[in-house]
Amino acid sequence: MRNSRRGEVDPFIVMDVMEAARAAEEAGRHIIHMEVGQPSTPAPEAARNALVGAMEQDALGYTVALGLPALRKRIARMYQDWYGVDLDWNRVVVTSGSSAAFILAFTALFDQGARVGIGEPGYPSYRQILSALDLVPVGLPASAENRLQPVPADFEGLELDGLMVASPANPSGTMLDRAAMEALVAACRAAGTTFISDEIYHGIEYDKKAVTALEVTDDCYVINSFSKYFSMTGWRVGWMVVPPDHVRRIERIAQNMFICPPHASQVVALHAMDCDGELQANLRIYAKNRELMLEGLPKAGFTRIAPPDGAFFIYADVSELTDDSRAFAAEILEKAGVAVTPGLDFDQARGAGTLRFSYARSTADIEEGLRRLARFMAERGA
Amino acid sequence: MRNSRRGEVDPFIVMDVMEAARAAEEAGRHIIHMEVGQPSTPAPEAARNALVGAMEQDALGYTVALGLPALRKRIARMYQDWYGVDLDWNRVVVTSGSSAAFILAFTALFDQGARVGIGEPGYPSYRQILSALDLVPVGLPASAENRLQPVPADFEGLELDGLMVASPANPSGTMLDRAAMEALVAACRAAGTTFISDEIYHGIEYDKKAVTALEVTDDCYVINSFSKYFSMTGWRVGWMVVPPDHVRRIERIAQNMFICPPHASQVVALHAMDCDGELQANLRIYAKNRELMLEGLPKAGFTRIAPPDGAFFIYADVSELTDDSRAFAAEILEKAGVAVTPGLDFDQARGAGTLRFSYARSTADIEEGLRRLARFMAERGA
Repeated sequence: MRNSRRGEVDPFIVMDVMEAARAAEEAGRHIIHMEVGQPSTPAPEAARNALVGAMEQDALGYTVALGLPALRKRIARMYQDWYGVDLDWNRVVVTSGSSAAFILAFTALFDQGARVGIGEPGYPSYRQILSALDLVPVGLPASAENRLQPVPADFEGLELDGLMVASPANPSGTMLDRAAMEALVAACRAAGTTFISDEIYHGIEYDKKAVTALEVTDDCYVINSFSKYFSMTGWRVGWMVVPPDHVRRIERIAQNMFICPPHASQVVALHAMDCDGELQANLRIYAKNRELMLEGLPKAGFTRIAPPDGAFFIYADVSELTDDSRAFAAEILEKAGVAVTPGLDFDQARGAGTLRFSYARSTADIEEGLRRLARFMAERGA
Repeated sequence: MRNSRRGEVDPFIVMDVMEAARAAEEAGRHIIHMEVGQPSTPAPEAARNALVGAMEQDALGYTVALGLPALRKRIARMYQDWYGVDLDWNRVVVTSGSSAAFILAFTALFDQGARVGIGEPGYPSYRQILSALDLVPVGLPASAENRLQPVPADFEGLELDGLMVASPANPSGTMLDRAAMEALVAACRAAGTTFISDEIYHGIEYDKKAVTALEVTDDCYVINSFSKYFSMTGWRVGWMVVPPDHVRRIERIAQNMFICPPHASQVVALHAMDCDGELQANLRIYAKNRELMLEGLPKAGFTRIAPPDGAFFIYADVSELTDDSRAFAAEILEKAGVAVTPGLDFDQARGAGTLRFSYARSTADIEEGLRRLARFMAERGA
């Protein structure tokens, strides 16, 4: 049986952490989960109830490939509500999570060998999906001065075919403000580089609203998801906004590669968009957790952090404490009973000196986790 | 904004038929749907109820990438029940429908430029997905004598990297018996060609049980789905069985490209596997419909058909009636009020002379459709 070269994908190191945490729990230990990248809350209650009703009235067969028109229209309306952007709903494409959106976007835009810039640190699957599709991920090491976001100087002269940015970013939680987004869009336009904006953490933001690329340009792909703000990770439903002349193209690819996004998930998503009360309550928990983390982590000895603008992660530079973040994370799990993610998944070059802490879980968990981290660091003599 | 070459995907012609049927219905006409490729029945009731319960008790976040272990184990048990095959559940990979299984399989197995044989007529998305992944689909025109299934002579000397077969097939409904499957597997082994068996219509079979490739060899990929027999098209959940040494590889690709199949759909699928009563009742309707079609279509004048062993399609050679199946299907829709699929989606070379009739809907619809087809053909003077 043959093996392809492009199927040679790096393992996620966080999976090893999760497995070690699971084994520790199985052995009777209590573990605080600061490694997971998902809300612990379910989809909003009214949205789940809507699905119960839909299951009684509808066979929930295939939808059209671009998704339920009612959902596409509702998403377009959200751009007005959230950003004041007037968006033609025909440009909205519902996808099987942002994962499918990446596959669709990369397939529609790039041929084999195309070079796509991605900020480092960043979501590790960008790199892996690009490679699996025979594209060339070009890592752009982002600097702490730029709050770990790429700037035009980072890719000047690199002749990129595409640039993918994320704001708020995973793992750093930092955002591109409007000026930064405009500068990137302008640099891409000048260089003939297609601009792709991953906005899946929009809605989970603290001091100011995230900027969508659609406020700056229509000449881009925007990728978003119901996983995070709408608390629907396992439902695998997201969306893209594409230029008008790309809709038909995406539709044909989606018909063949995906048939349609999960029908039930589209029903839940449609109704989740009217559940702001419950979702804002979730957000208040993240905001409280963030405050606790921003206070507690430096006290514990993790002092080199960029305060996150959004998402539910804090990325810490621990290079003064270790040159092996994987071993350090294993030590924290073993001695403190706190699971954290070594930075190697997000930044191959510098991740040996970083950790990602997630604060997506309950406030009680965050409080206990911070106590354990403080004790661990004190005993370690940091 | 750039466009890739590999994103240039042919449109589905059936989509035009469906749109024309929808427009006719909107204009007040009553249309019989023999174009659709999906059951009209929902997921089994007990399975839907299980999801209602799960939504109350579980946040339904991400599952592990390979799918819920309980579902993987239950699928493995089905191989014992259905085929007497003893299957290690660790080889079962739950996927986001067979669509995701195709993407995973092709990515894991083949590098750019690899040549993959597909029988013609066949499911049109094979060709499009292969092209989108920079692979080369090699159409193998199958003959009526071989009941429209490929045989080793069809690809001798073609130096294929892979061969994809489907049994029961779409659009013909014909199956490979054990001897035919063995011959294909042996020819592939001799030629160094990877064997992929699409078994998504298994369970919907009439006179004899379909043969799984796993009865013949472990050195293959098997792709299946909950869409058809389990009546779960819109839920987008399927599975693969891969060789033991490919599981880890597929897991890593799936983690990055899909994260996980929809959690809710996995819950429904798990419980659907214990709903044989309801599913067998669905099957009895297909069987009744098939009988009506095999009697009614020839009477109406569609005489050149291969009796289907499974699935819910009949593929008719209408080359004596037309050399433009697209126009013919449009005529049937307009004059008879019956939507059927022109063969061009399934066989680019010969599909101008073929039609696919689906009998997945209610028996009353089939009876009415056959009456209309008979009247239309009589008036046409066939």
